Amino acid sequence: MFNFPKFLKTNYLSAVQLIVVFYAAATIISMIILGLPFFHDEGVELSFTNLLFTAVSAISVTGLTVVSTVDTFNAAGAFALAFVLQFGGIGIMTLGTFIWILLGKRIGLRERQLIQIDQNRTALSGLVRLMVRILKTILLIELVGTIILSTYFLNYFDTWQEAWLQGFFAAVSATTNAGFDITGASLIPFADDYFVQSVNIVLLILGAIGFPVLIETQDFLKGEWDADRANNSFSLFTQLTVITFFGLIVVGTVLMLILEQDAFLDDMAWHKQLFYSLFQSVTTRNGGLATMDVNELTEPTLIVFCMLMFIGASPSSVGGGIRTTTFAIMLLAIYNFARGRSSIKVFRREVDTEDVIRSFIVITTAVMLCMTAIVILMVTEPFPLLPVAFEVFSAFGTTGLSMGITADLSPIGKYVIIFLMFVGRIGIFSFLFIVRGKVTRDKYHFPKEKVIIG
Amino acid sequence: MFNFPKFLKTNYLSAVQLIVVFYAAATIISMIILGLPFFHDEGVELSFTNLLFTAVSAISVTGLTVVSTVDTFNAAGAFALAFVLQFGGIGIMTLGTFIWILLGKRIGLRERQLIQIDQNRTALSGLVRLMVRILKTILLIELVGTIILSTYFLNYFDTWQEAWLQGFFAAVSATTNAGFDITGASLIPFADDYFVQSVNIVLLILGAIGFPVLIETQDFLKGEWDADRANNSFSLFTQLTVITFFGLIVVGTVLMLILEQDAFLDDMAWHKQLFYSLFQSVTTRNGGLATMDVNELTEPTLIVFCMLMFIGASPSSVGGGIRTTTFAIMLLAIYNFARGRSSIKVFRREVDTEDVIRSFIVITTAVMLCMTAIVILMVTEPFPLLPVAFEVFSAFGTTGLSMGITADLSPIGKYVIIFLMFVGRIGIFSFLFIVRGKVTRDKYHFPKEKVIIG
Ligand SMILES: [K+]
Ligand SMILES: [K+]
Repeated sequence: MFNFPKFLKTNYLSAVQLIVVFYAAATIISMIILGLPFFHDEGVELSFTNLLFTAVSAISVTGLTVVSTVDTFNAAGAFALAFVLQFGGIGIMTLGTFIWILLGKRIGLRERQLIQIDQNRTALSGLVRLMVRILKTILLIELVGTIILSTYFLNYFDTWQEAWLQGFFAAVSATTNAGFDITGASLIPFADDYFVQSVNIVLLILGAIGFPVLIETQDFLKGEWDADRANNSFSLFTQLTVITFFGLIVVGTVLMLILEQDAFLDDMAWHKQLFYSLFQSVTTRNGGLATMDVNELTEPTLIVFCMLMFIGASPSSVGGGIRTTTFAIMLLAIYNFARGRSSIKVFRREVDTEDVIRSFIVITTAVMLCMTAIVILMVTEPFPLLPVAFEVFSAFGTTGLSMGITADLSPIGKYVIIFLMFVGRIGIFSFLFIVRGKVTRDKYHFPKEKVIIG
Repeated sequence: MFNFPKFLKTNYLSAVQLIVVFYAAATIISMIILGLPFFHDEGVELSFTNLLFTAVSAISVTGLTVVSTVDTFNAAGAFALAFVLQFGGIGIMTLGTFIWILLGKRIGLRERQLIQIDQNRTALSGLVRLMVRILKTILLIELVGTIILSTYFLNYFDTWQEAWLQGFFAAVSATTNAGFDITGASLIPFADDYFVQSVNIVLLILGAIGFPVLIETQDFLKGEWDADRANNSFSLFTQLTVITFFGLIVVGTVLMLILEQDAFLDDMAWHKQLFYSLFQSVTTRNGGLATMDVNELTEPTLIVFCMLMFIGASPSSVGGGIRTTTFAIMLLAIYNFARGRSSIKVFRREVDTEDVIRSFIVITTAVMLCMTAIVILMVTEPFPLLPVAFEVFSAFGTTGLSMGITADLSPIGKYVIIFLMFVGRIGIFSFLFIVRGKVTRDKYHFPKEKVIIG
């Protein structure tokens, strides 16, 4: 009989292929769900391409839309969409975390505890336990978010039903970093409401910061540090990703404050400037919700946003892009090289050379992928370079912001964006694994020879 | 007494700093030369910024111009400019090759022979010998080029003096990949003259293919293979750079043929299409001469050209950019990773892991540098994204093509471009070395810890 857990343990390749199978299945299921006329407003007709686009956008929690969500889906449809977002966000978070744990050659005690692989349990039961823990965590965050937002929305909406529908959808959309909205205008109606924005920022960050960070923080707060762990502190991953994550939020906020000083932010009160910049900085990193039309921003700001969307969220989160750790390791590698150091030391740990090479492979592959997509779209679409580049980086970062060209893309353009959302979501690393053969230790070696670089 | 050769041998850092000292001195000298009113047409007034820009553009053999060369310099000035180009092209080629040899930890027999470091000679005499050999090679190429072009130009120009001045300048500008012209319109007057274009293509390639390739080919043709060399063949560097160099020329040609089929190349004879595409593909990689106005091209082609300019020429050549070997190693690393191989084997050799990391560091630093420059220029200049990006990649690749905004740049914009030409010319690798401390082997280690990537 086929031994699934053993198969998973011994064959890492298949573990990654799980993601593809999961996503193919999830896309088909969500196409069926979202395609049901029962969930549509009256008279809505969705083409195959637009239905596929919407399904992939929802499953990858990107939030780019070729059709207006509020004009396409009815109240029941909003719940169906929220379910798909949930499924996409949590599914990939679980699989991503699980595969990372399996791929790591030496499974550490903390990770072992995380998926409960020991003599008495199998990898499969570990996967189930992990998924349950992630599901519990995310649902708890969404529940609290829904209660807060819905109660508060009673001020905005006429009926409590409408307030709770809006609050529920907003909480799910923010926590899963989906970027979909049923207001019809993202968070622009709340551009002056700092409370709604603050709640959204917290939910967006909790979804995008990475599940291992949430787990470790939870353990820390409960005082449940692993007794076997030599160094009783947060893991290198958590420290690296948290610093990078918040560092990039600060960089994005400050750059928007500077670049838009004489433009969009001109003559605004300081708190208004701060909230516009902070919210947009947070949302470019994966959320895709916005308190303003990005077309109102100047071109330098939009280029900076392209870079922030490209970097994206933390690994093992609901977010896409090259991921924060990848970016951090690149910066550390460059810095240490420029300082003449032979190893990368950070937070009293050393980064593995293999991880350094992996990071660089992810970054350069992503750059080439996005550049190729831009060239193709420049051929097939009639738009200028900036809106096209913005769309590409938004799709790859599964951010979902747009300068407004999504619905007007040609079919080829839509399929390019669909592909980018898919790759951005499963990650370049997993994407390369799909085409990867079995890792083989070399049986023979050629002499090494150095070449002239750069 | 200060022992210069020993200092060079023991302190690699200083060997790289030589480049900076060389370039600072060379820039000042060429500013003085090019600033002499004796070399100017009557009534010409050069501002300090424009003189510095012209000097750096000439010394880095980029060819971007803020003033028209033909309207600024007289015949004597053309010779002076040719001298500066010569100096810039050969100087960096020599230093680049020399420093690479010193930096290589184990100096191979072939390299040892190249700079003649043995018991009886010092590094300094090796440097001098190397420079003499490079000088001889380049001058020979230029001499042959001048004779061919000047003789042929008798058909184009009224006097033999004019024909020889044009032929001499064209040969020097092409061989050093300078991209300067004294026709006032680059090679556009020769857009239908395949002979002139072919000669230029050969000269451009000989200048940009890298000095070690020229030396090895020379040795090979003379039958002077090093008897001590275990594997009697071309070095890994030569094989890698030659394949990449010509591969990229083919890619550029084919892409322009495809992308401009219904645009610029529409309704042209096949040979005309081929020559337009081939010449532009060759020139983007470093030459900067052009047989057409790049503004006539469509945006996808211009974006592809940006990428080709960014990659640039071979190391230890007159060219800039990230260099062909860097790009090749990146592709090999991604391919081998995707195939699940633990080492990079190519041409019966293995690439050193350190070289892989160096390549990625060069590429990512270059991308960040160019993106930062683009954001700054988008703030300071009134032009759209594409012309700005084109200018930035052209400067970094020391290519010298432009969509026509160079002369209209603000002073800040000009200094950004000056900086990029400088860094592009000395190379990111040397650039990082400038800020680099002494390389230290680690005295202590922290435990390694893996993190989640991409
Ligand atoms: K999103
Ligand atoms: K040039």
